[in-house]
Amino acid sequence: MQQVCADVAPVVGTGVVADYIPALAKVPIDRFGIAVQTTDGDMACAGDAREPFSIQSIAKVFTLTLALEHRGDALWSRVGKEPSGDPFNSLVQLEHECGIPRNPLINAGALVVADCLVSDHPRPLDTLLQRVRSLSDAGVHYDDTVAESELATSDRNASMAHLMKSFGNLENPVKAVLDTYCYQCSLAMDCCALASAFSYLASGGVHRGRASNTGDVVRIVDPARARRINALMLTCGTYDRAGEFAYEVGVPAKSGVGGGIVAIVPGRGTVAVWSPGLGPSGNSLAGVEALKRFVSLTGWSVF
Amino acid sequence: MQQVCADVAPVVGTGVVADYIPALAKVPIDRFGIAVQTTDGDMACAGDAREPFSIQSIAKVFTLTLALEHRGDALWSRVGKEPSGDPFNSLVQLEHECGIPRNPLINAGALVVADCLVSDHPRPLDTLLQRVRSLSDAGVHYDDTVAESELATSDRNASMAHLMKSFGNLENPVKAVLDTYCYQCSLAMDCCALASAFSYLASGGVHRGRASNTGDVVRIVDPARARRINALMLTCGTYDRAGEFAYEVGVPAKSGVGGGIVAIVPGRGTVAVWSPGLGPSGNSLAGVEALKRFVSLTGWSVF
Amino acid sequence: MQQVCADVAPVVGTGVVADYIPALAKVPIDRFGIAVQTTDGDMACAGDAREPFSIQSIAKVFTLTLALEHRGDALWSRVGKEPSGDPFNSLVQLEHECGIPRNPLINAGALVVADCLVSDHPRPLDTLLQRVRSLSDAGVHYDDTVAESELATSDRNASMAHLMKSFGNLENPVKAVLDTYCYQCSLAMDCCALASAFSYLASGGVHRGRASNTGDVVRIVDPARARRINALMLTCGTYDRAGEFAYEVGVPAKSGVGGGIVAIVPGRGTVAVWSPGLGPSGNSLAGVEALKRFVSLTGWSVF
Amino acid sequence: MQQVCADVAPVVGTGVVADYIPALAKVPIDRFGIAVQTTDGDMACAGDAREPFSIQSIAKVFTLTLALEHRGDALWSRVGKEPSGDPFNSLVQLEHECGIPRNPLINAGALVVADCLVSDHPRPLDTLLQRVRSLSDAGVHYDDTVAESELATSDRNASMAHLMKSFGNLENPVKAVLDTYCYQCSLAMDCCALASAFSYLASGGVHRGRASNTGDVVRIVDPARARRINALMLTCGTYDRAGEFAYEVGVPAKSGVGGGIVAIVPGRGTVAVWSPGLGPSGNSLAGVEALKRFVSLTGWSVF
Repeated sequence: MQQVCADVAPVVGTGVVADYIPALAKVPIDRFGIAVQTTDGDMACAGDAREPFSIQSIAKVFTLTLALEHRGDALWSRVGKEPSGDPFNSLVQLEHECGIPRNPLINAGALVVADCLVSDHPRPLDTLLQRVRSLSDAGVHYDDTVAESELATSDRNASMAHLMKSFGNLENPVKAVLDTYCYQCSLAMDCCALASAFSYLASGGVHRGRASNTGDVVRIVDPARARRINALMLTCGTYDRAGEFAYEVGVPAKSGVGGGIVAIVPGRGTVAVWSPGLGPSGNSLAGVEALKRFVSLTGWSVF
Repeated sequence: MQQVCADVAPVVGTGVVADYIPALAKVPIDRFGIAVQTTDGDMACAGDAREPFSIQSIAKVFTLTLALEHRGDALWSRVGKEPSGDPFNSLVQLEHECGIPRNPLINAGALVVADCLVSDHPRPLDTLLQRVRSLSDAGVHYDDTVAESELATSDRNASMAHLMKSFGNLENPVKAVLDTYCYQCSLAMDCCALASAFSYLASGGVHRGRASNTGDVVRIVDPARARRINALMLTCGTYDRAGEFAYEVGVPAKSGVGGGIVAIVPGRGTVAVWSPGLGPSGNSLAGVEALKRFVSLTGWSVF
Repeated sequence: MQQVCADVAPVVGTGVVADYIPALAKVPIDRFGIAVQTTDGDMACAGDAREPFSIQSIAKVFTLTLALEHRGDALWSRVGKEPSGDPFNSLVQLEHECGIPRNPLINAGALVVADCLVSDHPRPLDTLLQRVRSLSDAGVHYDDTVAESELATSDRNASMAHLMKSFGNLENPVKAVLDTYCYQCSLAMDCCALASAFSYLASGGVHRGRASNTGDVVRIVDPARARRINALMLTCGTYDRAGEFAYEVGVPAKSGVGGGIVAIVPGRGTVAVWSPGLGPSGNSLAGVEALKRFVSLTGWSVF
Repeated sequence: MQQVCADVAPVVGTGVVADYIPALAKVPIDRFGIAVQTTDGDMACAGDAREPFSIQSIAKVFTLTLALEHRGDALWSRVGKEPSGDPFNSLVQLEHECGIPRNPLINAGALVVADCLVSDHPRPLDTLLQRVRSLSDAGVHYDDTVAESELATSDRNASMAHLMKSFGNLENPVKAVLDTYCYQCSLAMDCCALASAFSYLASGGVHRGRASNTGDVVRIVDPARARRINALMLTCGTYDRAGEFAYEVGVPAKSGVGGGIVAIVPGRGTVAVWSPGLGPSGNSLAGVEALKRFVSLTGWSVF
């Protein structure tokens, strides 16, 4: 862990902080945190691993998990499972493919997933928050400033939502879907909470919590679904750099423009990293570097 | 193994045989073979596992391995590592991205790889054949009828090659590259030979051969490169169904329009299947089904 | 004129009535009207030339004329002058070209023009209505049912507007622009009024009215601008069939999905036709046929 | 005429000479010539109007005229009539639209036309040369250096030809079509010859020659076809700046990367200009400016 921090130090502070949302642009670029939770329940962390940040697109994995609970495989008639090959906010494929987004981890797909939550839960944002808190800790919260900031600059997402609506692929009014989507992106949590919250994907679908000697084991998804969500993360989780990430790092992961990345090593554990400086594809530069080093040192790769 | 054969039986014979190459269109659609080689060197096979077939695009993994030996990471300035999101023979991205193919496992990328072989080896097709024979058995050969048939109907590939040439991304004349490419696609081998030939990717880069008690262990690639080739196969190996395949099957694989698919399970072994009936994306229907069943029965998944 | 009506009769009633707006779908498909106004001020009409209909996209020429009055050539920094080569409601080019629509006669371009009107006029819809009434007659009005129907099904246009907003190419809120746009499309007038209203484009920019022996000559645009608007209509006025229309008919024209088409023959006069049955590109089938016959009989072509 | 030369002088020498063909790159950039032929047979010229240059894409109008003679409207099943909205050498639409080029005045469309000539004439290049000589003068010739230079750098055109061949839209071998195409582009003639050669399109389809008091009137096409070819030139004749050109100049025209442009004013005459400095769309900068001035001074516009 210390080795990783040392190796990554020169990269921390490089790149650019996401500036399309004013509230995100204010985050200091020199932060770096890392947390590892093994499937045995051990947790280790370093750097700014206790500082909460906006998880942004990482939330798409939580909402996908929730949507699959209600919709099952029927969800896949409304969203695909293929890498997009285009930037995360592109409308080109969406038009060519009649409003069916390529996968649930790009914005358009996550809007469809948010639409499902709006239909399936009376208070979808409460449901989501309870779920994430139950998987990590009670400190997780929505950052209203970020959410409102995001709503005020959501024309691109509104454009996608209206396009899908025009193709009949939204059940609810665009405004309700956008509200839910922007709030889910504003979820704030720290690296430790993130590593804990995603541990069910490393453990065949069960969550043990961070101090799980009390035996509070909860099944979140069945083993096949855990494998499948991991597969989606590997092929689609890091924007249009998923191929490069799989090649260089080699584990399922989901990144967010807040600078966080969570990686899953099935049977081993989860790794959450955070550093706000982004590369051209919207992935944290120091975060990718840290995962590369970590995997190289530990041999934790799926390949 | 028998279980897999029984489960797959209803699917064998469905789909369509590749008909764009006359020589391929003649293959009986009702064939099905499967061969498994573990990293310990054990081999099991069933069905038509001893009947040679045209491996077609599967050869792209062999040529990529060879090209990386001479070019190393410099290769990646001429071809990307990202899933294409488009059909395997699309020119759209190639034009938008100035003649740089998305990855080496689609046709355009494999043409760049073939161009490297033409530059790097005095007799590239001999080099390739020797390599594949050394990894499997002496029966592997080029099928001249298939190769000539492919050359005679290679306008689409010629179109891509000329487009890349116009962008300066081919070193050799288009004709020389197309010849090499069409011949590599015509490589004929059976499931057993295929499972053996790819075992280096399941074994961290070393090849043991099928009867390797004599200790003839040969390092083909270093462990990091083996992992990386596997990553490419997972994200890009099954045409524009790579996401679906990862989701449903969950292992690195490469398919060919001859009906073959080879799958890699790192640390466990390789599985080669063959059945000529193709689905809409060009992957063998019974082959995909067999791998899905096999993985489900054995738990051999990377996720 | 009677000849044209007779020739066109077999085509009247073929095609489909625009059904994406419920209010339009109710219009009887068997209507056909034609009105011709010469630059001398003579008017002739036949068939249902006195029945008002929804002019839809034809209004884009009126709003363009108004916008050019305030913005002049500065307008062309926000919208292009090239044929789109794509359907009228495509977002693909809009994304590739950073929110700058190809021309002001496709939906996206007309939304930019509507945005200018919202900025430049305190009550843009009143301004527009007054202008059109002054060019034709007092019976011209907005059809509230059509406008509301259009607003309720405007997701595709909302998608384009938000996309342009995200690129900074709208000055006003999306809602205000969409309201103006949908109301302008609902303008209802008959063939005679339409032929009269567009006569300024056939007369080098001056409007004489229908019974202009009183000498009420009004300059609407200067001669160069009249020529230029005609050029835009020729290259961009009939959706993605502008090339075919120029080839077969050979005069500047603008069509609407209400079934109307107005054609300009510089120095000769204007021809307005209406018949609700549309062909696959959204142009009135009988309307195009009528113009083709008319031009063939009179030799009124610009080529 | 002198006025035009004076007005254009500051623009002559700006832009860039086409450099993708070595033989073209050597032409001095400071040349400018203009020739006007009225439908009465009067000819006026100025500047370098007697210096032959490579007409390049302007030849596409001659070959289209020839192909229509043999194929008639059947030609339009193999090539469209719509502006492309894309650069002249794009493959994107060609792939999306199954090998049917948008119009006969972009490269792909002209390759289809060349394919027709190869099928329809035993010696298509001789037929073409005879035709052009009969319309202008005996000095017209193929420039072998340019043609060979063009053939040696024709990968982009070869790519398009193979793509169309793969879709079944070429009747002859790619090589034969490319040879014919590259030679037709190398036709060398001066402004006076060019203005004369195109006079049939300004005169309703008949050619009178330059000194036609002898009465040698020859019908080349019927009046309807002349109008239609003019319509195609207006919507598709100046690459992806056809809309701008129609807006600013307002007459049918065809340009070539050799720096020539020929404009047709139906009923009035033809104007041929030449100046090798090209703007970003491949049209001669001084040539466009000269036509703009000429039209402004004479009022020769179709709108």
